[in-house]
Amino acid sequence: MTQSNEYTMRPIGVIHSPFTDQAQTPIQPSRSQAIGQVEVYPEFAEGLQDVDGFSHLILLYVFHRSSGFTLTVKPFLDDQTRGLFATRYPCRPNPIGLSIVRLTEREGCRLTIQGVDVLDGTPVLDIKPYVPEFDAMDGVLIGWYGLRSKA
Amino acid sequence: MTQSNEYTMRPIGVIHSPFTDQAQTPIQPSRSQAIGQVEVYPEFAEGLQDVDGFSHLILLYVFHRSSGFTLTVKPFLDDQTRGLFATRYPCRPNPIGLSIVRLTEREGCRLTIQGVDVLDGTPVLDIKPYVPEFDAMDGVLIGWYGLRSKA
Repeated sequence: MTQSNEYTMRPIGVIHSPFTDQAQTPIQPSRSQAIGQVEVYPEFAEGLQDVDGFSHLILLYVFHRSSGFTLTVKPFLDDQTRGLFATRYPCRPNPIGLSIVRLTEREGCRLTIQGVDVLDGTPVLDIKPYVPEFDAMDGVLIGWYGLRSKA
Repeated sequence: MTQSNEYTMRPIGVIHSPFTDQAQTPIQPSRSQAIGQVEVYPEFAEGLQDVDGFSHLILLYVFHRSSGFTLTVKPFLDDQTRGLFATRYPCRPNPIGLSIVRLTEREGCRLTIQGVDVLDGTPVLDIKPYVPEFDAMDGVLIGWYGLRSKA
């Protein structure tokens, strides 16, 4: 059974980052100290109320420079081919990226964030508060990532 | 500056859950022991290779029963109005939901998951492995959620 439904997403903002070259971009926020900014478009500004109270935000964004996908890939940190959904590889059927970043300041529609791992100009689809009760898991097994060939 | 770009997303599968009524659906996986299944469409099956090694998966899906949004909302667990992006409320400009669930079994295209908090028939956009190095944060402040009126 294949679903024929389609969903159209429109950016609510854009990420400003120091990275303009994919090869120089950190692969995850936890491996980046880079500072960037989320510029939320003015029509969504009101939705940022209360965001300041959270130290960490979940950003959902478009891997806008990715194109197409294959269902098996060689991840950045491994030499073996893995199933795409067992990786965070950017080329995906729905190229949605997820990063958890530290929020250090908010000035109106501009959020200053630490731990930027995306390209400059990345379109933002959603911002959610990071809540350990929902998002921090215990007793986690990490499959191939625990056996990967690169640190 | 408003971005005019649009991105079309097509489901890669569907979530089977015991919940058919929004009012009966747990608000987060951490508050649910319910068992469900992710049925990945056969054309994406190959991408599930190596998923079995991970105990937890990040599901990105469409809040398909939500319609429209307001930029301030009264969250399920509070009596005060909050900025939408400081909540996990389902009605959002881009109604993408995120749940971290426990993977208990995989049979071909079918993933059995524990901690289901979504409605039956929810369209899945992406599956990513949960990796504490990327996804579990320390020293987190949770803003209004720490002061909420309901447990």
